[in-house]
Amino acid sequence: MKRTERLIALTEILLSRPNELLSLGFFADCFDTAKSTISEDMVAIKETLSLTGKGRLETVPGAAGGVKFLPSISKKEAQGFLQKLAASLSTSERMLPGGFLYMADLLYDPAVVRPLGLIFASIFRSKNPEAVVTIETKGIPLALMTADALGIPAVVVRHGNKVTEGSSVSINYVSGSSKRIQTMTLARRALGTGKKVLIIDDFIKAGGTAKGIMTLMQEFNAEVVGLGILMEDAIWNTSRLIDQYFALLQFVEIDPSIGKTVVKANIL
Amino acid sequence: MKRTERLIALTEILLSRPNELLSLGFFADCFDTAKSTISEDMVAIKETLSLTGKGRLETVPGAAGGVKFLPSISKKEAQGFLQKLAASLSTSERMLPGGFLYMADLLYDPAVVRPLGLIFASIFRSKNPEAVVTIETKGIPLALMTADALGIPAVVVRHGNKVTEGSSVSINYVSGSSKRIQTMTLARRALGTGKKVLIIDDFIKAGGTAKGIMTLMQEFNAEVVGLGILMEDAIWNTSRLIDQYFALLQFVEIDPSIGKTVVKANIL
Repeated sequence: MKRTERLIALTEILLSRPNELLSLGFFADCFDTAKSTISEDMVAIKETLSLTGKGRLETVPGAAGGVKFLPSISKKEAQGFLQKLAASLSTSERMLPGGFLYMADLLYDPAVVRPLGLIFASIFRSKNPEAVVTIETKGIPLALMTADALGIPAVVVRHGNKVTEGSSVSINYVSGSSKRIQTMTLARRALGTGKKVLIIDDFIKAGGTAKGIMTLMQEFNAEVVGLGILMEDAIWNTSRLIDQYFALLQFVEIDPSIGKTVVKANIL
Repeated sequence: MKRTERLIALTEILLSRPNELLSLGFFADCFDTAKSTISEDMVAIKETLSLTGKGRLETVPGAAGGVKFLPSISKKEAQGFLQKLAASLSTSERMLPGGFLYMADLLYDPAVVRPLGLIFASIFRSKNPEAVVTIETKGIPLALMTADALGIPAVVVRHGNKVTEGSSVSINYVSGSSKRIQTMTLARRALGTGKKVLIIDDFIKAGGTAKGIMTLMQEFNAEVVGLGILMEDAIWNTSRLIDQYFALLQFVEIDPSIGKTVVKANIL
């Protein structure tokens, strides 16, 4: 195999196995070549990654070391993506009765949530989360894509308390906007104790749900290292129950009488 | 930029934008080179992809043409992955009261569901589905990863009929094993009419839920081109309500008295 072919093959393998530590010996065996040759190849791949902005190659030294591809998105590409997304949400067809915005189709579209997951991962990677926690249902794809980009598992909190997954912890929480008491549950075996967690959700209004998840996390001795939200409700003009979060978009205005909806991208 | 660097950069861009048609002109502009040069590069990338088994490069001819990376997984790698997954499920710690198997942690782990999505995509790509349909909650990550590998949106059917997403269609269905009447709902705007759909779910016992989704799909004039299930319950020895499906794993035995659980991988 020629060097160019090997470089392409190495790039293909690295990018299709993100966040996985692969030893130089593994590649040397794959391509029947010396580790020092693979090591030189990795330098070339590392350099072009810094040009394309698709991620970063991390080198772990030592006998148990190797290389790891950490997927990412450049700030410029991310900001452009959010602006386009905000524009596509600012249309009258997306209005629902009651002043809601229809966005379920986008939340389940990989072409939308994959870049969003990369954006959340790029923002929170430095906090070293060990799991991404969300609550069913619409936040799941966002949480999953964020977890995929970070190479960690996602954990899904369920509504109600009818969870049949062995012993579980339930908490009651007050939905900040509707003031109704609700229940959320997480199975004990879904999350080890004392983990660093990143909470991801699709929408924040008064913050009752997010606060509920944070309370639930205390039961698992988890440390919440970040709270990423796709869209904050900027129409809501009463103080929120929590203020430490990072939202990618803001829902600025909805006026059914004139068919006007405004969503803006926040600055990364 | 040297040819080797350009080849690495091209591979990085293609693999990070799966299922997206990218024109040769786009790359020619990116790298300030001739389209004919890019075309030669694509031949080299296409060839190594056939060696690494990470997917396929599709060339679309004509003025509106270009290249598209279709992610995939080799049959050998897929079978090996399913065997390891089956083994990790065949442990007594996974037993839940009532003869159930705990697998929620795996269903939310990208390191598990990403390969599973690639396997489903490799099986069903030739049927040209336009959307992947599932029902909340545990099937969502599988459906999303399958949709991502196929480059199409996922659509999530909700339990009950309290969906606040504009006009919606609800159907009643009988859960095949518990014989209880239940309701599932899908918003009209979640799925266009007359689409080819692939149904993905995590588990099949009697098949009542799958049959319900198929009935719901009729209301959208959708053509169900495939039904992919992660695990079939092989303990269930009464006939199923549907028989046209492809399951990756089978749940063969659970015996709480001796702490024995057996899950097997089906042959792809």
